[in-house]
Amino acid sequence: MHNDTQESGEKERMVLIGGGVGPMAGVELHRKIIEQTATDGTDQDHLEVIHLSRSPVIGDRTDYLLGKEVADPVEGMLRVFRMAAGALELEGRQAVGGIPCNTFHAPAIFEPFSRRLEEEQHPIRLLHMLEETAETIRELAPGARRIGLLSTTGTRKSGVYEEILGRHGLELILIPEEEQERLHEAIYHRSWGLKAVSPAAEEAVERVKRAGRILEERGAEAVILGCTELPLALPEGRYGHTPYIDPMTVLARALVREAAPSKLKPRGG
Amino acid sequence: MHNDTQESGEKERMVLIGGGVGPMAGVELHRKIIEQTATDGTDQDHLEVIHLSRSPVIGDRTDYLLGKEVADPVEGMLRVFRMAAGALELEGRQAVGGIPCNTFHAPAIFEPFSRRLEEEQHPIRLLHMLEETAETIRELAPGARRIGLLSTTGTRKSGVYEEILGRHGLELILIPEEEQERLHEAIYHRSWGLKAVSPAAEEAVERVKRAGRILEERGAEAVILGCTELPLALPEGRYGHTPYIDPMTVLARALVREAAPSKLKPRGG
Repeated sequence: MHNDTQESGEKERMVLIGGGVGPMAGVELHRKIIEQTATDGTDQDHLEVIHLSRSPVIGDRTDYLLGKEVADPVEGMLRVFRMAAGALELEGRQAVGGIPCNTFHAPAIFEPFSRRLEEEQHPIRLLHMLEETAETIRELAPGARRIGLLSTTGTRKSGVYEEILGRHGLELILIPEEEQERLHEAIYHRSWGLKAVSPAAEEAVERVKRAGRILEERGAEAVILGCTELPLALPEGRYGHTPYIDPMTVLARALVREAAPSKLKPRGG
Repeated sequence: MHNDTQESGEKERMVLIGGGVGPMAGVELHRKIIEQTATDGTDQDHLEVIHLSRSPVIGDRTDYLLGKEVADPVEGMLRVFRMAAGALELEGRQAVGGIPCNTFHAPAIFEPFSRRLEEEQHPIRLLHMLEETAETIRELAPGARRIGLLSTTGTRKSGVYEEILGRHGLELILIPEEEQERLHEAIYHRSWGLKAVSPAAEEAVERVKRAGRILEERGAEAVILGCTELPLALPEGRYGHTPYIDPMTVLARALVREAAPSKLKPRGG
């Protein structure tokens, strides 16, 4: 008893979430993929998603970049993608994949990973969350050259946004270090931080807004919400003239676009 | 560069989410598995989760029970589990699986499904969300015999809770039909329903609380929050003397318990 929905569904690429980095970031990406998919109102019209969350096999990316002894994230994520490839081959399907971790996109990790992936010839096309973000910035803020970053202290220190936006001729604007501490606390504070309290506490929202204003004062023409929790305080959108862009939403939209272009919701829709 | 966390992780069973029924319910189950896992504070101490969300191949369960022509949910979910089994075999691993859909647990669907699964001898142990819920009721409300149900109209009409609790000698208490319409609207209303607005709107919360009070007045000694969205209005917990139980949290806890018993958080912890 196959129906039309099923037949059209089976022509689409599946979406692969290379997850576990961290586990909750994968859940948020998964949620956003569903939210960004335009359907006929039935479950059956949603995309097929393979979400493999394998935290134990993937070492901490920041520690790895710092040279600490952790499980190699390249080898770990290859195991995730090989497992997905085996599953895809069982059904003769292709997938488009994304990895919900800023630091994994540091060239020292992402480049060897994508090279190995290509050599192994899996039926998976890998997207790059930060490259997609740079392209979205061009689209939403054409001509912008100075881009602000709000993130955890770890993402900031990894330099990953600076490096990748730099390749696109974009200059990264940061908040002063003492403000970074205030922002980091807005994310991590045990009693009122964004990771601890839902909906977002007023103090956390105020700190995120303040950090954004400082970036704008420093000349930022667009702002990246470079941490999963920040959109809980300040949802993606335009504030005044300045677009605030959430890389996880960008990645979710890119995955839907590559899996089934006709099912991508209009932006903000 | 393997570390201790990785080695201990690889002895654990993986957790399988047989998802797409509906897609967002799988995301909620996935979130709860992460929330119910006690870790050492690192990502690497979380369980490995295979979450396959394959909505297009699994027909609507309620329509199927009503004899409408839809893709057979038993065949569809078998395809999900075979795909997972293929992936597990690549790594020589076992899994414990759960399905985040009330109606899938109707005996007319769940029984042939679990029989076929056993015949095919996959390395997956399947849990039953509603059997686990009945056992949790026994634990949290020992001696209780009259159990209230809050749910969508579809779950209520499917009779799945009545049938399964009946096997445990438990009597199901429902709200009157006109109240059911008010409750259904609390979940589905386009502008203030629980599916539409986060955090929950006051009107929706009031309707869920009212429905719970009516069940208690009718003699319910425990109440089942039998729909993914209801805990957004009334989180699982004890209200007065009456435990309100969320079957998705029950399933998440059962999956953690079967995958890695030492990592199950204390209830309410």
